[in-house]
Amino acid sequence: MSASAENNVVKENGWEEGTLLQKVMELVKQENLASGMESSKRVIEFQHPKDLEKILQLGLTREGLSFAQVEELLEKVVKYSVKTQHPHFYNQQYGGIDEVALTGAWLTDALNTNQHTYEVAPVFILMERFIIQHMISLFGWPEGDGIFSGGGSMSNMYGMLLARYRLYPDVKRTGIFGRKPLVIFTSDQSNYSFAKGASVMGIGMDNVISVATDSCGRMLPQALREEVAKARARGGEPFFVNASAGTTVLGSFDPFEDIADVCQEEGLWMHIDACWGGSVILSKTHRHNLNGIQRADSVSWNPHKMIGTTLQCSPFFVRHKGLLHECNSASATYLFQQDKFYDVSYDTGDKSIQCGRKVDAFKLYFLLSTKGMDLVEKKIDAAFSASDYLNEQLGVRPGFRRVIEKPQCTNTCFWYIPPSLRDQPETPEWWEKLSKVPSIIKARMVQEGTMMIGYQPLASKNLVNFFRLVNTSTPMTTNADMDFVLDEIERLGKDL
Amino acid sequence: MSASAENNVVKENGWEEGTLLQKVMELVKQENLASGMESSKRVIEFQHPKDLEKILQLGLTREGLSFAQVEELLEKVVKYSVKTQHPHFYNQQYGGIDEVALTGAWLTDALNTNQHTYEVAPVFILMERFIIQHMISLFGWPEGDGIFSGGGSMSNMYGMLLARYRLYPDVKRTGIFGRKPLVIFTSDQSNYSFAKGASVMGIGMDNVISVATDSCGRMLPQALREEVAKARARGGEPFFVNASAGTTVLGSFDPFEDIADVCQEEGLWMHIDACWGGSVILSKTHRHNLNGIQRADSVSWNPHKMIGTTLQCSPFFVRHKGLLHECNSASATYLFQQDKFYDVSYDTGDKSIQCGRKVDAFKLYFLLSTKGMDLVEKKIDAAFSASDYLNEQLGVRPGFRRVIEKPQCTNTCFWYIPPSLRDQPETPEWWEKLSKVPSIIKARMVQEGTMMIGYQPLASKNLVNFFRLVNTSTPMTTNADMDFVLDEIERLGKDL
Repeated sequence: MSASAENNVVKENGWEEGTLLQKVMELVKQENLASGMESSKRVIEFQHPKDLEKILQLGLTREGLSFAQVEELLEKVVKYSVKTQHPHFYNQQYGGIDEVALTGAWLTDALNTNQHTYEVAPVFILMERFIIQHMISLFGWPEGDGIFSGGGSMSNMYGMLLARYRLYPDVKRTGIFGRKPLVIFTSDQSNYSFAKGASVMGIGMDNVISVATDSCGRMLPQALREEVAKARARGGEPFFVNASAGTTVLGSFDPFEDIADVCQEEGLWMHIDACWGGSVILSKTHRHNLNGIQRADSVSWNPHKMIGTTLQCSPFFVRHKGLLHECNSASATYLFQQDKFYDVSYDTGDKSIQCGRKVDAFKLYFLLSTKGMDLVEKKIDAAFSASDYLNEQLGVRPGFRRVIEKPQCTNTCFWYIPPSLRDQPETPEWWEKLSKVPSIIKARMVQEGTMMIGYQPLASKNLVNFFRLVNTSTPMTTNADMDFVLDEIERLGKDL
Repeated sequence: MSASAENNVVKENGWEEGTLLQKVMELVKQENLASGMESSKRVIEFQHPKDLEKILQLGLTREGLSFAQVEELLEKVVKYSVKTQHPHFYNQQYGGIDEVALTGAWLTDALNTNQHTYEVAPVFILMERFIIQHMISLFGWPEGDGIFSGGGSMSNMYGMLLARYRLYPDVKRTGIFGRKPLVIFTSDQSNYSFAKGASVMGIGMDNVISVATDSCGRMLPQALREEVAKARARGGEPFFVNASAGTTVLGSFDPFEDIADVCQEEGLWMHIDACWGGSVILSKTHRHNLNGIQRADSVSWNPHKMIGTTLQCSPFFVRHKGLLHECNSASATYLFQQDKFYDVSYDTGDKSIQCGRKVDAFKLYFLLSTKGMDLVEKKIDAAFSASDYLNEQLGVRPGFRRVIEKPQCTNTCFWYIPPSLRDQPETPEWWEKLSKVPSIIKARMVQEGTMMIGYQPLASKNLVNFFRLVNTSTPMTTNADMDFVLDEIERLGKDL
């Protein structure tokens, strides 16, 4: 036996090999974390921060924990964590996982390698390439490149970086100091990562122009055209347009063909933030929402949002081969030697702005290959179908009101008008009262643990707090689940 | 039973719940991935990319895979992946994991939540806060803040972002266009992430000044002082100094107190890239290498490199409370509502430049609390002790030569001089021949699968290819392991 095997920490603590892993497995099974929870269980066992601190008793000691203490800690972690896999967790653009995805994630963790060279990640480098090429062909691009990034915000920044590099390759060496201010365009409904990215890149949040949207939250191409002209007139240098595929709140898909026309006329990079809505490309019924994607220069996608790979799983795609490497490479000789004995074009790490990268490609490849594309499609379609049903119900149930008439994605936005506020003149005071309703109902649902739904105002549309229910495809949602949500909101809010 | 449980994909495929997860568990046990591999097993089953493509037969189908096909795929993934947990994997600044860390990672994956609000990650938000406060007190800072980032490169960029924001808060809004070129200083031995970060931030790689180092790879404080003066004379705006704690190749620790003096005199932000060497703070014997860290403005640390948490685990720390939030916040109303019913100061996500963040804090907390600090310390000390032994052996074994006399960290850099090159005049031709030796021996060790050790040249010191053996603390390395390495290099290279 090797010395290192003798020195295994689990054995040093006097525990049998595999005991801790078995404990996790038991917890996962006991709570049905991977296989579909009962909706009768609680989605959250809420405690306020100070109370949870007392329960957890966090601390480090010289001698470590006994096995009984470890078990207790793991049980508390599960008990007080939010069950994102609960059928009634509709809080965000992500949710549970299924056993297939979790299997991929577990094996990735166990192998613990780094997605930067073929040398240390041969299998995973090939899988990353495969997935990227597969998606590029689905987009209808003749060629392209891509990389799994550290999340959607990073992917969106990759788009901005490549656009800036294409415009001014010497920026990589000399910076942007002497330049005209670079200007970014994105709709007033888009994700806040463009503002953050602009701040990071030295462009500044003021140079991210919010383009107006229609009543459904879709970018107005004519407004984009006008904003570009205004920016040029102010002495700015427009270079990048983001179009959203599934906006965070309303779930809108921008009109990509029209935006591509503007980008072509104006010589601007067209990026599509498809982090949320990109998964529809896997559905014959819903992929029309992405029409025009074939003309984008770059695309971000987070399969962890809709199709149940674990967080994070964020491939980024670019239509221009070679550009990722040119833009980001720094050729560290301690990683990317050119005198290796294999084909070093498989060493992809220098395309990344990270050095070490977790292997996120495997769980996506494993999920898609194991489930098969029919089942993935069926589950996406089911999320849309449940959302359609919910939207219908919102139109007929007393006390509910839609924020937009016909949502494009599986976000459903609505107000609940409690009995005391119904059939009254909708004065500013009335709206003020209505704006308090979601936070009170949210507090009640969390304290009872029956479900979780997000809410927020939408300043750009002058809308007060409303619920936003998000259906992901895992767990698969049914019409009965949607009825439960509406019944439960009524129950929790009828006295308001 | 809830509808979603009925629709579980594993059951849809006709497989029993838990079967796939059990399969991963079996593979992990069978190969001893978590408990210490036998050194007689292969560290890699190498195949060239084109051959591995044929073996893996990657592809997606409409109907998905049978269980037998899934088993075959998982077995191939394990077989052809590099065993970073092998006792003779010395290739990088990371290695295996142990069962404790893996348990934490598996549970994190199973719970699948996002580290951005207390609302969805109550337990993990508290653990992240705890670890950050604990480390801050170890650094000797009276107060501070921090965040787990997407890797060491991201953490180093956080340092640069905060330094830039402190100098020019309006950069966040307006960008850096009209400014004098900002200038960054870091040693010629430091990690390449500063160049990448400068490119991303619009500063440009040419504005990252390489400061000269002594023969052991430590930054020369006088050289730093001179470079700062030269940059000012050129019209640049020095603002950020990186000091390294454990450089990537030589493992050097810069003289932090002296560098802090320069930063104080010149009014510059002092960052310490302690991604690799930061773990020594947990060892009474080796923490002196970090003397001066109490004066740093920010610190990056990757516990996944030395103490065996899985990739990635990258806390970033800053001594100035509030600055992270001021610099990075974009106040997305759909995530960071202020009218929630709990204390929203626990919602940390707006301090991040990411939106979604994987939970990386738990595995570190779980590792440290379960093992206990004594055992963590013992394992770090063992890595240093084995490196000391190796370094001694390099001084007495014929045919081996140290690159530096006394390494500070657990990287050991050396040449192997095969018999045919011994006792000869060391002409340029001789060095040219010697430069080919590591790549040939590396190819042979990989093809036989007996061990993995990195090699690289070091242009900044005019050194040709040499081996760099990295001892992490997991698995724990022994003197016998070091003897094996030297014997094996002799065996593989004696005919060269």
